[in-house]
Amino acid sequence: MENSRLKKVSQVLKEKELDSFLITNPYNIFYLSGCWAQGVVLITPSERFFFTSPLFSEQAKKNLAKFKIIISRNNFIEPVTEIFKKLSNKKVGFENSYISLCKYEKLRELNKEVNFIPLENLIENLRVRKDEEEISSIKRAHSITLRCFDHLQKYLQRGVTERDLSTEAVYFIRKRTDKESFEPIVLFGERTSLPHGIPTQRRLKENELILLDIGAKTEEYCADLTTMVFWGEVPDKWHKIYKLLTTVQEEIIKEIKPGVKSSQIDGMVRERLNKAGYLDAFIHNTGHGVGLEVHERPIISEKSPEILKEGMIFTLEPGVYFPGQGGIRVERMVIVNKTGGRFLNDYC
Amino acid sequence: MENSRLKKVSQVLKEKELDSFLITNPYNIFYLSGCWAQGVVLITPSERFFFTSPLFSEQAKKNLAKFKIIISRNNFIEPVTEIFKKLSNKKVGFENSYISLCKYEKLRELNKEVNFIPLENLIENLRVRKDEEEISSIKRAHSITLRCFDHLQKYLQRGVTERDLSTEAVYFIRKRTDKESFEPIVLFGERTSLPHGIPTQRRLKENELILLDIGAKTEEYCADLTTMVFWGEVPDKWHKIYKLLTTVQEEIIKEIKPGVKSSQIDGMVRERLNKAGYLDAFIHNTGHGVGLEVHERPIISEKSPEILKEGMIFTLEPGVYFPGQGGIRVERMVIVNKTGGRFLNDYC
Repeated sequence: MENSRLKKVSQVLKEKELDSFLITNPYNIFYLSGCWAQGVVLITPSERFFFTSPLFSEQAKKNLAKFKIIISRNNFIEPVTEIFKKLSNKKVGFENSYISLCKYEKLRELNKEVNFIPLENLIENLRVRKDEEEISSIKRAHSITLRCFDHLQKYLQRGVTERDLSTEAVYFIRKRTDKESFEPIVLFGERTSLPHGIPTQRRLKENELILLDIGAKTEEYCADLTTMVFWGEVPDKWHKIYKLLTTVQEEIIKEIKPGVKSSQIDGMVRERLNKAGYLDAFIHNTGHGVGLEVHERPIISEKSPEILKEGMIFTLEPGVYFPGQGGIRVERMVIVNKTGGRFLNDYC
Repeated sequence: MENSRLKKVSQVLKEKELDSFLITNPYNIFYLSGCWAQGVVLITPSERFFFTSPLFSEQAKKNLAKFKIIISRNNFIEPVTEIFKKLSNKKVGFENSYISLCKYEKLRELNKEVNFIPLENLIENLRVRKDEEEISSIKRAHSITLRCFDHLQKYLQRGVTERDLSTEAVYFIRKRTDKESFEPIVLFGERTSLPHGIPTQRRLKENELILLDIGAKTEEYCADLTTMVFWGEVPDKWHKIYKLLTTVQEEIIKEIKPGVKSSQIDGMVRERLNKAGYLDAFIHNTGHGVGLEVHERPIISEKSPEILKEGMIFTLEPGVYFPGQGGIRVERMVIVNKTGGRFLNDYC
């Protein structure tokens, strides 16, 4: 499977008449190599190099049978330069979003004859559609996340802190799979208005909103889900917003299928929230892809150029926030099948 | 305190006759602002701007009294450009190691009259010497890490996995302070030869080496310590290496004081390991600074230009590794006082 990914990359290089492709994004490197050793990858139509430090030498040698491993004590720039010297056309693709200006300038300084060509999204274009194995890892991460929500119910009592719940979530997940895919967001009361809030020692009082935004990571693949708990009696307003947002989700899932623009999906959500008078309170995108990264393509936003394709997995997460009062977000994960969209399962 | 940091930065800008300084390194931003809201900071001699997204708007408004907050739905480039238009000299410092080539090119494209000047290490030069408050956070993180080592002894039994211990370490730390400062490295037997190994389901057998490299993070400040456990009877070779490495540490601490080059410290460690015949097995640097980041300046390496100064905190971590057999690392944290170096405390 990884082999076929490498072949696809080599194929694109041939088509674009490039001598090689320098890969510096660690998720792209893992996607191609299956190894988290720190380093960079260089792919030519015929050879594959993995440049790493002595710290990772043993791991690299064990796990990277398809790569020629080059160990260097300093950074990758000098050893990469040695390879560049042997190239014929001197046309090298690289990831301009994943290299610092400083490193790029050093690389160019040492390789004045090389024509560096920004290659955006080559590997991301592969990553955006998940294969069977990836889908099955994501489903396992998803299922553990749902069980984590259930588990946390046990700890809900007056006086428990946001931090307590977050700690229990991390422990539950790590006992069952790799780890959490991001720091759990656990917020009480008025703090639920912070879309990316960090759990604190804030204690749970009677009759409050609870927001749980949690994800497990299984075999390197992420889940990302948000659920709300109404603890005791909370104002009717919150129930109504919750009902609205879940209804929007149920309506929108029917519109998802290959060929639809992700900006259209975002637009449909915005249209419904606008009608209900909540558009200004919806301060983020409708969703984002989930895979090796918890936020990746496709982005489901107003300006996203992405067209939905079979095998894409992303979140659908309308949210409404009132600073100082609270917020409601419902976040579910969607997979695009041949004919339509489907929630990863029926819980939430 | 944060105020004095901002003043120091403004002072440097005046000295260098810069109109402003664009800060994109998130740790540097936190150091100056005390807030983790995602964004970038622009400092002029008279004003301070924090550019962030609507997602962080509420947090930013609450925590950033000293900054003018500018909310933008897209990235920071357009709103920063608006400020640049008003500058007089158009001389802007920026962090060339913490901006991607792609973002830099967009910024330059929109700001052709601006003279962008790479300013390396301006804030890192401040961060490298810790003040009283920072030292006290690091000491608390250090103390919790030591207690974590003690706690893990309870779980040592035949059949426990590396992952089990790592999970218990994370749980212990999160129950007592913010979180772990990096993913715990817990390795058994022959796997102790991996300096950056990732814990697996490998089970503990009788008579093995155990390596625990763990750190807690308290009030955003990290600790980083490594200890070895000899589980049952292990070959005498490992005991001898352990004795050698701890002796080296005890000798080297006496050489640490303000004014000494960090490359000299590294050299003294290498010299001793060379005499003992283990130089080739020492495949990393002697140490690294610890603060907001678990690896930061000063780097204690062969080529480091750093001169030790009062208030620096770093690790001293000689290690010897034999692929397929095992390794020994002893890692303690050192603070540089007015007259000499001191281990953070006497445990280990």
